[in-house]
Amino acid sequence: MQQKLLSVTKRTRTTPFSRRLEAAGVKAYTIYNHMLLPTLFDTPEADYWHLCEHVQVWDVSCQRQVEVCGPDAARLVQLMTPRDLSKTDLLQGKYAPICDAQGNILNDPIVIKLADDRWWISLADSDIKLWASGLAQGYGMDVKVFEPDVFPLAVQGPKAEELICRIFGEEAKSIKFFRGKMLAYRGELIYVARSGWSKQGGFEIYLHKAELGEQLWDDLFEAGQDLNVGPGCPNGVERIEAGLLSYGSDITEANNPFECGLDSYLNLDADIESLSLPALRKIGGSVTQRLVGIIFDQSVNFSSSANTIGGFDLYDSEQHIGEVRSQTWSWRYKKHLAMAMIKTAYLATNKQVSVSGCEGNIHELPFMTEVLAN
Amino acid sequence: MQQKLLSVTKRTRTTPFSRRLEAAGVKAYTIYNHMLLPTLFDTPEADYWHLCEHVQVWDVSCQRQVEVCGPDAARLVQLMTPRDLSKTDLLQGKYAPICDAQGNILNDPIVIKLADDRWWISLADSDIKLWASGLAQGYGMDVKVFEPDVFPLAVQGPKAEELICRIFGEEAKSIKFFRGKMLAYRGELIYVARSGWSKQGGFEIYLHKAELGEQLWDDLFEAGQDLNVGPGCPNGVERIEAGLLSYGSDITEANNPFECGLDSYLNLDADIESLSLPALRKIGGSVTQRLVGIIFDQSVNFSSSANTIGGFDLYDSEQHIGEVRSQTWSWRYKKHLAMAMIKTAYLATNKQVSVSGCEGNIHELPFMTEVLAN
Repeated sequence: MQQKLLSVTKRTRTTPFSRRLEAAGVKAYTIYNHMLLPTLFDTPEADYWHLCEHVQVWDVSCQRQVEVCGPDAARLVQLMTPRDLSKTDLLQGKYAPICDAQGNILNDPIVIKLADDRWWISLADSDIKLWASGLAQGYGMDVKVFEPDVFPLAVQGPKAEELICRIFGEEAKSIKFFRGKMLAYRGELIYVARSGWSKQGGFEIYLHKAELGEQLWDDLFEAGQDLNVGPGCPNGVERIEAGLLSYGSDITEANNPFECGLDSYLNLDADIESLSLPALRKIGGSVTQRLVGIIFDQSVNFSSSANTIGGFDLYDSEQHIGEVRSQTWSWRYKKHLAMAMIKTAYLATNKQVSVSGCEGNIHELPFMTEVLAN
Repeated sequence: MQQKLLSVTKRTRTTPFSRRLEAAGVKAYTIYNHMLLPTLFDTPEADYWHLCEHVQVWDVSCQRQVEVCGPDAARLVQLMTPRDLSKTDLLQGKYAPICDAQGNILNDPIVIKLADDRWWISLADSDIKLWASGLAQGYGMDVKVFEPDVFPLAVQGPKAEELICRIFGEEAKSIKFFRGKMLAYRGELIYVARSGWSKQGGFEIYLHKAELGEQLWDDLFEAGQDLNVGPGCPNGVERIEAGLLSYGSDITEANNPFECGLDSYLNLDADIESLSLPALRKIGGSVTQRLVGIIFDQSVNFSSSANTIGGFDLYDSEQHIGEVRSQTWSWRYKKHLAMAMIKTAYLATNKQVSVSGCEGNIHELPFMTEVLAN
């Protein structure tokens, strides 16, 4: 597909940072949860190396929160995920697939416990507010479900901690992975967590006051000048190297957690009330397809083989064995990397497969650095 | 906002017609229901006149269907909308706002009755499948809720009927507005309805076989050569002239049907089981804001006054009185037209309001042709 323009209307919501993104020269967007998500500032390669070497500020406002509060809040949130949330600490976040009664994945958010009776579901791309509201309505639960105006800003990269400390103080250093603290900023207490969709380290600032958006952006850029801070965005290259999955691409509503390698986020033996657990216990890892990695030694021209649903068909000799869901050229490893859903009958580590006439080898996800660097 | 590129991944789904759109020179897209929706082929003005004078084929695959089938199907669909569906004929479509228990609008689809126990909800931009599934789950209903692979293709414009008859036969002529028939096409019976998001007349073909997509596209273009058939898309100018609302822009989840002028689609006195009816009866038209039209005699530079949530603030002298949600220059009427949500305290027909320093006058929606042409 050739380069296309994006048409923007009120429906494709802007964010409190949009004017700053424009000023910073954002070149491309995608739409995520009905909201603009920047995807390119410089060249793809320059964006990539900058993230890996310095620190970037990402407008991930589109990572919308579904707030569930009230007496039945914990019960409703637990009902939606097969991961045991009973031992979640205050201000802790947990990656928790949202699954339906068939065990299929409706979203793969981070669930954050703000209080015993107040939770945020920090979303991937689907309207989970509707699912949560529908369940609450049908089960007659005593909860309020809504989308608060919270606009996460991620600070990612090896110098992220230094930058965050300059804005929020040294206390940020003590935040552990997937934990958060309420930190002071210009008279507000803001939830700041050590998390983010990269493996370069970093934080997410859950800004709940839109009016402070441009000030926060400016403060980060002023404080980070000597750190070479720059605008950035979830990086399609780095995240594939790191094996981070994208809901809607690698994971779809037609998949269960076993197929996507999310087994470790399921608590099959837990004594909890979860909609999907009965189905998932039954499936128990017995799946007919599974998400794996593929490494190609040369660059592959994927665009020539797009199928009608936006994926790329994968072959073992003449046999159609699955579909590539995400792929990228890795400048670091000088290899083409893909994530693919492949029929288990054809799965074997190191097995050769082909797409667009190019041969690659199957590997488990996440890719092992030794293998990539080999 | 300057022109931006759109980043496309598997998550932003392509359609069975995507390759044909590319070949036809599509220039811009938006994302709608996680799917590519074309927005521009020639210039905005050329696209507009072509629609009004000839016939266009629109890929509106993103108008996804939620299929509800099973013994409780009619009950669930009725539960979701305050419009009385009890007298819906087979293959009839009804514009039916989906509202929650507070009376707020979650979507404004066309609901189609395929059988007593099988319905399609032909969606605007939100994941109503999740809402319907959540309700079905919570209420323990005996239904199946899913998104079938149906890809609507709209044929719109004054020559649409002629073109549709050439492909589907003269029987198409007998289809009344918002009614449909199962018509034969290359060995398949396809649901064809007289509907579409323009006032130029036309049909929507609910293609349920992706494999036939390119063939159907080609057949339409071959049969319509002498009709000057062209590629098109929901037209942001024509639809505002016609007063057609866009969910996500003009209508949001924070609005109820009274605020959006949808009173005539509510059956407040009906003896039906609908989640939102109790709340809507209570509201009963007593609202604090309402969607109206604004006509400006000159072109307005809206981009200079975008607020942080993608709308444009509206003033009565110094007083903030509401927000413009959609706007366009009308080549036909040589006026700038807007749809705006305005506090009822400030509403009066013909009243002057200002945005971006330009003065306009309030009018009821849809705009009256006499007023536009004046």
